Amino acid sequence: MAVNLDPPSILQPVAGIRLASTAAGIAHQGRDDLALIELCAGTRLAAVFTRNAFCAAPVELARRHLSGVNPRYLLVNSGNANAGTGEPGRRDALACCQELAAVCECQTEEVIPFSTGVIGERLPATRINSSLPRLKSGLSSEGWLDAAQAIMTTDTLPKGVSRSLQIDGRCVTITGIAKGAGMMRPDMATMLAYVATDASLSQTLLEQMLRELVGDSFNSITVDGDTSTNDACVLIATGRSKVRIRHTDTAYHDFYQALAEVMTHLAQAIVRDGEGATKFITVWVKGALSEQEAREVAYTVAHSPLVKTAFYAQDPNWGRLLAAVGRANVERLDMNHVDISLDEVTVFSQGGVDVAYSEQVGQRVMARPEITVGINLHRGEHQAKIWTTDLSGEYVRINAEYRS
Amino acid sequence: MAVNLDPPSILQPVAGIRLASTAAGIAHQGRDDLALIELCAGTRLAAVFTRNAFCAAPVELARRHLSGVNPRYLLVNSGNANAGTGEPGRRDALACCQELAAVCECQTEEVIPFSTGVIGERLPATRINSSLPRLKSGLSSEGWLDAAQAIMTTDTLPKGVSRSLQIDGRCVTITGIAKGAGMMRPDMATMLAYVATDASLSQTLLEQMLRELVGDSFNSITVDGDTSTNDACVLIATGRSKVRIRHTDTAYHDFYQALAEVMTHLAQAIVRDGEGATKFITVWVKGALSEQEAREVAYTVAHSPLVKTAFYAQDPNWGRLLAAVGRANVERLDMNHVDISLDEVTVFSQGGVDVAYSEQVGQRVMARPEITVGINLHRGEHQAKIWTTDLSGEYVRINAEYRS
Repeated sequence: MAVNLDPPSILQPVAGIRLASTAAGIAHQGRDDLALIELCAGTRLAAVFTRNAFCAAPVELARRHLSGVNPRYLLVNSGNANAGTGEPGRRDALACCQELAAVCECQTEEVIPFSTGVIGERLPATRINSSLPRLKSGLSSEGWLDAAQAIMTTDTLPKGVSRSLQIDGRCVTITGIAKGAGMMRPDMATMLAYVATDASLSQTLLEQMLRELVGDSFNSITVDGDTSTNDACVLIATGRSKVRIRHTDTAYHDFYQALAEVMTHLAQAIVRDGEGATKFITVWVKGALSEQEAREVAYTVAHSPLVKTAFYAQDPNWGRLLAAVGRANVERLDMNHVDISLDEVTVFSQGGVDVAYSEQVGQRVMARPEITVGINLHRGEHQAKIWTTDLSGEYVRINAEYRS
Repeated sequence: MAVNLDPPSILQPVAGIRLASTAAGIAHQGRDDLALIELCAGTRLAAVFTRNAFCAAPVELARRHLSGVNPRYLLVNSGNANAGTGEPGRRDALACCQELAAVCECQTEEVIPFSTGVIGERLPATRINSSLPRLKSGLSSEGWLDAAQAIMTTDTLPKGVSRSLQIDGRCVTITGIAKGAGMMRPDMATMLAYVATDASLSQTLLEQMLRELVGDSFNSITVDGDTSTNDACVLIATGRSKVRIRHTDTAYHDFYQALAEVMTHLAQAIVRDGEGATKFITVWVKGALSEQEAREVAYTVAHSPLVKTAFYAQDPNWGRLLAAVGRANVERLDMNHVDISLDEVTVFSQGGVDVAYSEQVGQRVMARPEITVGINLHRGEHQAKIWTTDLSGEYVRINAEYRS
């Protein structure tokens, strides 16, 4: 059902990084469900995690490990989130890190754990640990696509993308993989993203870029407003290309742009693969007093079940769009100055239906698989863009039948 | 599909109030769609309206009229919301008030208009106005149930309730009617409520009681978080029973309690009749630092599509409850101190599944038509209770097919 999404054709290796995948039998048989990402010495890493107060054991442990030494290994399992598992869950996560440290001859703190899958069940640490020697021996710089597949849960397609660019006569590569089926299932839809480059960046710059770009990519998507307990986004710089990116460089802009493209592609891929999705919808709010105000309006529209079901029905039901904008938590909004458009068609302006609008024209736009809802508040200079899906009967079916 | 809801058997007349209904042919043929409520001279009225910035023409006009003289007539139509209709819509609403004033020999400002129905279509003011003499001649103190039916849109059942109580040896009656199918459709699901008593209250006390009780009734229900452009709740006191309610009276508490019961009954009836609803769910958050915090957590749970589909599936998927609580906008929430229960069954406590909990016990609770989700944050003394429904495939079907 994914909307305009294909599996990645080629994922470029990133110098300094090797990956491996294996089937550890965590939840399902016959598929890889455990991935290892090895980082060369000297690699810098920045990470952001879920804001959910109910965060999983591996998230707690990852945060703690990252506060100390530079990491060397990222261990990722699908099939089990190790969340809601209390103290035993914390012990399980630590045990896997300890075992991997023994196998790979590094410190336990240099291993960062990630889990995604069912909530509330004990992690099968023994099965994971017995797979670690096999995992280590499979490490390869070509392992990106296999890893993208191993970390999938309810995703219908693996998600990944590469960009290369020339800086100072040298080639710099950025490759990223992600999983997540639209954050529609806290049980299974954890969003995980790993983006790596062989460029060299200071820790400060790496963290700053991650923070900025996550805001415009992974933090600008929504399917149903639910946030996973295990979300994580990691940005890695190995430095092996010998190209150094500084904030003052002329090449900085090019690199930033390429990195933004990678992260936006991955974030959008998650929305396109949202369960039950039949539409890829951009909600673009302009003319707001602040970016926060623009995001508030955009999210209110993007989360409205009525708006989402109208998109599913391909119904240009602008009353629902208006009502959603009107109930957004925004001070003194004058609806008589709000314009609303569907792609190139102005639907509502100056307090009433646009004079040129007709139901027929609206229906033509709504039949498209990708639609941009334009909302201009005409009261400021700020804007925000949010990507989301429609709400289909398939969504309810999947989420109601799951686990049953 | 309504959950444990029957049509009202008897609605008691309220001295000083007459009602009438008729079929004006506004949207559908063969059913009443226009109601008139006549208030005797000296009646006091308090009203609250939608907070949606995109409010309909009749809401604007009603607010203006109420700021002047005491109202004598409430004119309510279903089938057309007169919203998103710009200046022509305002003229239509005013024209109906003017015509009714002429027919009933009162001032235009003494007529308060209410509309509910489709957004974006012109109100058929001529058809309404030609029905007004017929409407006037049908006025009767027994007209409550007919009026409750005339104001219905997508409701499957009329909603109304009466309470009588003895105060100082005299009988005081409170009767209320409401419409709304769960605020699930801004097009059609406007919530309208009219509650009247023959007790006598000061304007200040009337407004204070309405404000307080709306918070614990109509402002504590949600189906999908969407707010209509036309919502209104009206509290009327005719004073004809000659019983005066003062804040300092001993009878105040009894009267307040009876009024609270009427408003809560009507609010819950709207949830029970929510489209596609198969469950009536109470989300009861305790132990919060403030009432606002308790409401934030309760609404986050009540709005979560994942929680709602789990209820539809009768699946005790506590991971979804936890994840929803965890992502609520609450500062420094420690999930290790949060307890979660389903009716009498504790599901989660001290950071993990409760020792006595089993999937089988959880499933037994989830099979019930009415379920209370108990959430104790264990960090304060405040609480909040929100009523909501599940999210069914029927909801999507209704809201996707509507208008198509």
